[in-house]
Amino acid sequence: MKNYTSIHDIDNLHSWIEDAKALKANPLKHVTLGQHKTIGLLFFNSSLRTRLSTQKAALNLGMNPIVMNVSGDAWGIEFGDGTVMNGNTAEHIKEAAAVVSQYCDIIAVRAFPTLTDKTLDESEHVINAFIKYASVPIVNMESATGHPLQGFTDAITISEFAKKAKPKVVLSWAPHVKALPHAVANSFVQAMQKMDVEFVITNPEGYNLNPEITGNTPITHNQEETFKNADFVYVKNWSSYSDYGKILNTDPNWMITKAKLGDAKFMHCLPVRRNVIVEDAVLDSDSSIVIQQANNRTYAAQLVLKKILERSPS
Amino acid sequence: MKNYTSIHDIDNLHSWIEDAKALKANPLKHVTLGQHKTIGLLFFNSSLRTRLSTQKAALNLGMNPIVMNVSGDAWGIEFGDGTVMNGNTAEHIKEAAAVVSQYCDIIAVRAFPTLTDKTLDESEHVINAFIKYASVPIVNMESATGHPLQGFTDAITISEFAKKAKPKVVLSWAPHVKALPHAVANSFVQAMQKMDVEFVITNPEGYNLNPEITGNTPITHNQEETFKNADFVYVKNWSSYSDYGKILNTDPNWMITKAKLGDAKFMHCLPVRRNVIVEDAVLDSDSSIVIQQANNRTYAAQLVLKKILERSPS
Amino acid sequence: MKNYTSIHDIDNLHSWIEDAKALKANPLKHVTLGQHKTIGLLFFNSSLRTRLSTQKAALNLGMNPIVMNVSGDAWGIEFGDGTVMNGNTAEHIKEAAAVVSQYCDIIAVRAFPTLTDKTLDESEHVINAFIKYASVPIVNMESATGHPLQGFTDAITISEFAKKAKPKVVLSWAPHVKALPHAVANSFVQAMQKMDVEFVITNPEGYNLNPEITGNTPITHNQEETFKNADFVYVKNWSSYSDYGKILNTDPNWMITKAKLGDAKFMHCLPVRRNVIVEDAVLDSDSSIVIQQANNRTYAAQLVLKKILERSPS
Repeated sequence: MKNYTSIHDIDNLHSWIEDAKALKANPLKHVTLGQHKTIGLLFFNSSLRTRLSTQKAALNLGMNPIVMNVSGDAWGIEFGDGTVMNGNTAEHIKEAAAVVSQYCDIIAVRAFPTLTDKTLDESEHVINAFIKYASVPIVNMESATGHPLQGFTDAITISEFAKKAKPKVVLSWAPHVKALPHAVANSFVQAMQKMDVEFVITNPEGYNLNPEITGNTPITHNQEETFKNADFVYVKNWSSYSDYGKILNTDPNWMITKAKLGDAKFMHCLPVRRNVIVEDAVLDSDSSIVIQQANNRTYAAQLVLKKILERSPS
Repeated sequence: MKNYTSIHDIDNLHSWIEDAKALKANPLKHVTLGQHKTIGLLFFNSSLRTRLSTQKAALNLGMNPIVMNVSGDAWGIEFGDGTVMNGNTAEHIKEAAAVVSQYCDIIAVRAFPTLTDKTLDESEHVINAFIKYASVPIVNMESATGHPLQGFTDAITISEFAKKAKPKVVLSWAPHVKALPHAVANSFVQAMQKMDVEFVITNPEGYNLNPEITGNTPITHNQEETFKNADFVYVKNWSSYSDYGKILNTDPNWMITKAKLGDAKFMHCLPVRRNVIVEDAVLDSDSSIVIQQANNRTYAAQLVLKKILERSPS
Repeated sequence: MKNYTSIHDIDNLHSWIEDAKALKANPLKHVTLGQHKTIGLLFFNSSLRTRLSTQKAALNLGMNPIVMNVSGDAWGIEFGDGTVMNGNTAEHIKEAAAVVSQYCDIIAVRAFPTLTDKTLDESEHVINAFIKYASVPIVNMESATGHPLQGFTDAITISEFAKKAKPKVVLSWAPHVKALPHAVANSFVQAMQKMDVEFVITNPEGYNLNPEITGNTPITHNQEETFKNADFVYVKNWSSYSDYGKILNTDPNWMITKAKLGDAKFMHCLPVRRNVIVEDAVLDSDSSIVIQQANNRTYAAQLVLKKILERSPS
């Protein structure tokens, strides 16, 4: 593996999960592996968990993290081919990616979608430009259509908390006040499709995710019915995919309640808006495993970085 | 000591001062104590000295500092209980504090008061929410009502420069163009009340600090009279406490001058507005010990972190 | 050398170039030299290459970099003497520089010119105030009139790519949409004047650089003619010096094309606006050595820091 940009970069999810658990049991075992190596964390968008957990993961491997908020610390980056750059962008990704590659052994990038230009977003033009023009490995810290560090984290967490061989996992849409990306949901779907789970998605009409990603995964529009016998309910808002980036529904009946949840464990990537996505009673109970889930972000990132470091010639 | 959030967390100020002086004499003596441990510095507000000196203190103990400007790097944090989060805040402190605790062995927080809502400010809702919801020690890098790293620094500095057994120390209000918090003044008062000094506060009428903090400390409204025979004059602006957060007085006669100061040493937490709080002639003379005072910020923070690291199970 | 603020601080350019090449061949040779030492990188302006490469250089020497965006992370700094600070600045450079000196073993500063007040800019009031009031060495990460880390980088790069004893080097102005500083051009001129090269500057009328800097270096206004037989064409936009800070010319005929360039190598400090300063065909060809040039930023900075560390008493 050179780059980690999608759940599909995981060759064997089961073995990766076991490796991540081993790192969690002994986080400093490989603390010399990344010595004198630098990871550049480039944020085109805000971040809390990813910012901190990826730095922590790098430190656990002995790496030096260098963090940059691209727009605030530097300037606008141009991604278009052949652009006459007489506008607001001051540096082309061709130079930026090649230059950062001179200073960092790994580049990790966060860049959200526009949610207005579906074609552009689906082209993953930011992360793909880094892959094309950088000379070092690229890690996706959430791109337009995927958040594979989160998806891998979610798989680890379900593996840790599962009490039966083939648990039932539901991905449920929930309402939100802003139009949100599909990235977390997409990567979760892809991770679950690789796991030995009974997996169902439930969302309102008009909110089906990209059918190329959901594939054969069943999709229902009846949330309560779908939650029956669920072992894990993974909750996330996303904007419409078919009516791209639009908010079609804010029905509070889709909010997750303790009553609906039953005995299932509640999962969410965070940040989560309380009493909009989910009621306090869920988050404040033992049904919620969102903090344990967030903790696994470190070990997911650490395994990805470890695999990249082990591969890359010194 | 688990958390350091107030001068009252210092069990023995005299012994802490001696310990801090020992660290200053040999800053790297404990450079392996914090090895592979991480401190998260979370800033809800601007900072220069605290930002740099706390990082330096952590590095002297071998810790890895991770710095985050909460609003700029992440998003608005919600502190209300039971809030329906459909507004500007995207993550509740319950999750944020618990999550950051997964990545950091110590969390240090700066969060200024509103200066409009006295009840909210005095509840110390930000720092107390971190204490309540984080699972790791919390260090106060200036909260609504206290700046105990500064207050401890000030005590160290007075101890270093004192030429007699029981020096006279005056805390004087001085004019400023903006409404400023009471935190620095409060912590200085609390520190002096624990020291063997003759301590007096002088401020214009309407500017008495919280009587629960000043207690039996004498307060005068005659600055020049009070400065007589002073060994140390500690200067700070604060807004009115009784007419909460208001500017009632900008009388330039309260500005500190060389003539008024006499043989006393001038102290200030910085940043200081020249020729508003104090005239150039003071800052540019040997009477000012503000730079030596700022230097002690490192060793105050380093002792606090050392005590927390020594206590916390590995 | 205490401070590195100008190309004139290089006592022997030839030997510095050889030393930098040696560092590039073995970047970690001196990884314990800066152990437990801290460099503060203070940015009054945006930065990408300088931000990352200077951190990388410091890490290669074992130093701890602490990065601060002065305005965003702290507040406005006052540079005027005797100012009554009742406006937008909250801390005077006298305190700021002295205080940061307590926490950092070296201070590196970036501060661009106003481009409106020539006298102020030429006084280099920011970098000189740091030199005056700091007690530790100062490194110029681009000031009002010079960018000596870049100029030294450029000399290293030309030395690496030169195929003849005395190559012909042309510094060419190119059009840009914004009024840009003279710093990069000035330091390049000063570096070339110390090298064994045939050096010519070409720019439109009204765009001659400061004659005190260009000195005896020939200046032409005929770009194509000047490019003949050039081995290196170094390109940069700058605003007018005589009509200070103004844009007098945006003639696209001054844009660098593959046809004009011939067999010369193309150099630029980056960021570069494609198809405004230079056409894609140049940057996307082997004629461009801008990425290799950017790589040398690390070793230029590393040598400067190494020389400062070796000089300064521990």
